[in-house]
Amino acid sequence: MGSFADRLNAVATESEALLARLLGDTPLAGETARPERLVAAMRHAVLGGGKRLRPFLVVESAALFGAGREGALLAGCALELLHCYSLVHDDLPAMDNDDLRRGQPTVHKAYDEATAILAGDALLTLAFDILSREDVHADAGVRIALVRELARASGLGGMAGGQMLDLSAEGRFAPKRSLSENEIITLQAMKTGALLRFACRAGAILGQANAEQIMAVEHYGAAIGEAFQIADDLLDVESDAATLGKAAGKDAEAGKATLVAALGIDGARARLNHLIDSADSALAPFGAKADTLRAAARFVAARRN
Amino acid sequence: MGSFADRLNAVATESEALLARLLGDTPLAGETARPERLVAAMRHAVLGGGKRLRPFLVVESAALFGAGREGALLAGCALELLHCYSLVHDDLPAMDNDDLRRGQPTVHKAYDEATAILAGDALLTLAFDILSREDVHADAGVRIALVRELARASGLGGMAGGQMLDLSAEGRFAPKRSLSENEIITLQAMKTGALLRFACRAGAILGQANAEQIMAVEHYGAAIGEAFQIADDLLDVESDAATLGKAAGKDAEAGKATLVAALGIDGARARLNHLIDSADSALAPFGAKADTLRAAARFVAARRN
Repeated sequence: MGSFADRLNAVATESEALLARLLGDTPLAGETARPERLVAAMRHAVLGGGKRLRPFLVVESAALFGAGREGALLAGCALELLHCYSLVHDDLPAMDNDDLRRGQPTVHKAYDEATAILAGDALLTLAFDILSREDVHADAGVRIALVRELARASGLGGMAGGQMLDLSAEGRFAPKRSLSENEIITLQAMKTGALLRFACRAGAILGQANAEQIMAVEHYGAAIGEAFQIADDLLDVESDAATLGKAAGKDAEAGKATLVAALGIDGARARLNHLIDSADSALAPFGAKADTLRAAARFVAARRN
Repeated sequence: MGSFADRLNAVATESEALLARLLGDTPLAGETARPERLVAAMRHAVLGGGKRLRPFLVVESAALFGAGREGALLAGCALELLHCYSLVHDDLPAMDNDDLRRGQPTVHKAYDEATAILAGDALLTLAFDILSREDVHADAGVRIALVRELARASGLGGMAGGQMLDLSAEGRFAPKRSLSENEIITLQAMKTGALLRFACRAGAILGQANAEQIMAVEHYGAAIGEAFQIADDLLDVESDAATLGKAAGKDAEAGKATLVAALGIDGARARLNHLIDSADSALAPFGAKADTLRAAARFVAARRN
């Protein structure tokens, strides 16, 4: 089945090509025209980098249940577009005010704020357009389930809500107070966890898995989601900007609520190991077929940028 | 069947109640928590006013084809949420920089810019969540068609793209040049027309109308969409802020490309009358059943705020 790195790289390469096609200049049925500057800003936000972890999780979760790779890749790219929209809006001056992303100027620096707001809006919208396409799955019931789950994972009760909690935790709207460990876990389960859980569930939904199987991959997704965030927070504490491709140490500076701040570096590392074990356990029902997802959990916990 | 005004008011009242329910505090399945400040900002953006023209068009178009009213109202409210997201983002300082909307402070004035960006994002996302629900229509194929059409109407080749063209026409990104009449029509067909066309098509899709019938209501929707924009532009020229509930004369000040500027006030009024005739003609196949939609075309052209 190829090494983990080979499989990850294969999805990244295929995703890059597919994303470039999805962000083409030609209007689709139901569209009037695709304005050049807007498409260019969307391409800037999406193309030319990224591990494409979310498409990878959709594809590998789908493979576990024998779902078609092409449809999973397309659903994964819809999710990637939605992830990129969230980065564009989070980077805005009124939000996290970041100038760099993956070592490149953020969209509002490369273009301007209005264009960045619209590019984010259009990426979010395009994600739902893509999930509605027959190429994702022949069964409309499967596609509509993906639409609903992605909307829930990314809306006010998911990612957008998590970003709101994060800004609140910085003391933007009321006097700052320390968050408990559980509050931080909830915040991060929304802000970054929800989309990773969705990625894993999406593969199972595409494979028309039963409720128990969907729950198993959701547990896996929840564990790697939390691990992902701890690894990210550890990186922010331990890295320099050159390794990270963006400004380092910004979390502490902004007073962001992180588990690393709450548990200390050693405590956070211990929790990371516990989460990898949880991810492994969740995959037990699938035996060796799930080895790539097991490797993905280790990769997420160990990543350096 | 009741007067036009009665029917419009009935939908507005029902929509207000339904929107308030959809913007509740309680997390749904798949959501973790709904942060209080974010829900409050979304309610501020949506509740307490508006003619609810878009839900009305969905409901009346659906009635033409015998589709259930409850499902049409729900789909109409999804569209209304999406319309409200576009107002919140358009009002932002980086976009049109408006302080007032329906006589109330805009969301970024009542809250702050970050909250307004997130509230818009979450409203857009909630629209797709709602369209995915079984209460809209029992047939998943119908719901997924609505998702796809709404995404196309509101994304880079629709409303968001139209807003981009509008900002370009102001000379934000390159030296300003005058737009031709056709360029203005294209811009407005994207920026405001696409959602009104969708409203009319959505009713027909819910009623599982045939292609010819869907095309007829689309032609109607295109005519009232253009009429709506001309009426809006005439209002901006002729009104004062007290009548309008927002700053007046801003279009001319910002150098916005409008048909009123291109055709003059008399030319624009003549075009408005022509568009009402077009809307009537498009509805010919439906006979007297379409009288409410005919009255809606006159209402759109004659509105005063």
